[in-house]
Amino acid sequence: MNGRIAILGAGAIGLYYGARLALAGRDVSFLARSDLTAIRERGITLTVEGREDVLKPAAVFARAEDIGPVDLVILTLKATANAELAHLLPPLLGPATRVLTLQNGLGSEDTVARWVDRDRILGGLCYIACMRLAPAEVTCLHAGSIALGEADGPARERTRELAASFESAGVACRVVDDLVAARWRKLIWNVPFNGLSIAAGAVTTDVLCADPALRGEVQALMREVQAAARQLGIDIPDDVLRKQYDVTPPMGPYRPSSLVDFLAGRPLEIEAIWGEPLRRAQAAGAAMPRLALLYALLRRIDADRTRAAAQASAASAS
Amino acid sequence: MNGRIAILGAGAIGLYYGARLALAGRDVSFLARSDLTAIRERGITLTVEGREDVLKPAAVFARAEDIGPVDLVILTLKATANAELAHLLPPLLGPATRVLTLQNGLGSEDTVARWVDRDRILGGLCYIACMRLAPAEVTCLHAGSIALGEADGPARERTRELAASFESAGVACRVVDDLVAARWRKLIWNVPFNGLSIAAGAVTTDVLCADPALRGEVQALMREVQAAARQLGIDIPDDVLRKQYDVTPPMGPYRPSSLVDFLAGRPLEIEAIWGEPLRRAQAAGAAMPRLALLYALLRRIDADRTRAAAQASAASAS
Repeated sequence: MNGRIAILGAGAIGLYYGARLALAGRDVSFLARSDLTAIRERGITLTVEGREDVLKPAAVFARAEDIGPVDLVILTLKATANAELAHLLPPLLGPATRVLTLQNGLGSEDTVARWVDRDRILGGLCYIACMRLAPAEVTCLHAGSIALGEADGPARERTRELAASFESAGVACRVVDDLVAARWRKLIWNVPFNGLSIAAGAVTTDVLCADPALRGEVQALMREVQAAARQLGIDIPDDVLRKQYDVTPPMGPYRPSSLVDFLAGRPLEIEAIWGEPLRRAQAAGAAMPRLALLYALLRRIDADRTRAAAQASAASAS
Repeated sequence: MNGRIAILGAGAIGLYYGARLALAGRDVSFLARSDLTAIRERGITLTVEGREDVLKPAAVFARAEDIGPVDLVILTLKATANAELAHLLPPLLGPATRVLTLQNGLGSEDTVARWVDRDRILGGLCYIACMRLAPAEVTCLHAGSIALGEADGPARERTRELAASFESAGVACRVVDDLVAARWRKLIWNVPFNGLSIAAGAVTTDVLCADPALRGEVQALMREVQAAARQLGIDIPDDVLRKQYDVTPPMGPYRPSSLVDFLAGRPLEIEAIWGEPLRRAQAAGAAMPRLALLYALLRRIDADRTRAAAQASAASAS
């Protein structure tokens, strides 16, 4: 896939993949807000397992209008910022623009479809552990891979071409024939670990694995997600659950992305990771009692915190 | 029931019922630790709906040995302090001593039975809203009632005599023929409201009732407790669930006793209120998925807080 690329959302994921593609010679424009000045002055620095790469200069813009229509939008905003898509996305769209959403959880393709034909939407799952430790600086603990698929239907020639673009930029990338199924598979890990790490009082994954009662709940939540997926016609073998659990204890005191957001005072992707799967399961007649409880708790914890942060910000502004 | 009474545990509940009985002319000895000096100097003050009663002098002791064997022990320690029963209870026991435990949740009678014949054990459920706002001072928002029963079997003559003693001391008291069933009925309220008020981020009951997702979880937890009780041969009609829910919104921003403990930094009665019901249900083949998740979260939240408190205390001592 050639042509212009816009990165919509300059957090860790957007900066990382965008800089990788630009360093490989792609024409990449970044839309940034808080990191704008830092990126202009210093470019983007990627540190992966001790190796440092710097993209400088980086084409960075404050307004989508200054980028204009591109061939591919890579959507890396947090789902909690989706209300802003209404003004950020349209200026980037031409009649043939494709949108690749790398947002977590379920529902992102449907959100994008408010502005773009479903036939032009792709989705990707990022298996990566990276953090933006300072403006314009991303550190990657585990570069992992992307699983790419079409919003509807199996992988096509264009899906494979896009995957090849990522591969030639040094990003491991595979295609999947059922994106929704791939998203449910990823939820097998995200639902329990992202959720319980917050609800149990801001603990890392090693704590969840070491506590017998919490470990049991991790595994029970995995089975709830598996059963709900099955009700939706998606088979996730037991072996996948076992592997997803087994990779976790060796990760040590790992902070799932939602816990990182929580500790940084950012809103949580409640609906994408817990709310939407619950609603789809219930609509299909699958009870998810543990997820229902977890979702209700996280919603309240998030709302209280967001309100407290807004009050603190209003107080410091007055 | 005549004779000497010892109050084991001088928190709000112990001070309230002990002082009521003493003010009615009963021979009541209090075992106290933190409140000892205050009770010696000022007696015990009860404030109930604006009316104040003072018991002065109050017979208060620092060691169970200084009280010696009594006719009735009223156990009002928090269940979290039950490890201390091994040295606090035996000095109070003669060959015919009865023990009335007013502890919350399930399992208290079984704990007491390590030192006392089951035939000499009674239990009571306190429907009361009272707080110890200062040493030796109890304020009661709602004096409520006690439900009294035998550890094993239906109410007897002695059960009714004890209830009459409370009644003549101004404490509404009824007898029940199945104490375990009465304890499960009380859990219909305590399991969801005490638990979710903490797990949802320290919120009062009005918040739980006003949030649609949390309200749904309150009611779903009530049904889990009902189903588990049914599996154990205890029928709790739907009407009871509806009433227990319906009394709650009018209570306004109420703090369940566990939330009061939580906010005061005291350990929670995790096993009595959530752990023991879960284990009994599971042993009877009843799945309680929501309770299992809630229990695992509360255990961890409580352990972390208790550890933090111990570290703070060790740091301030060093």
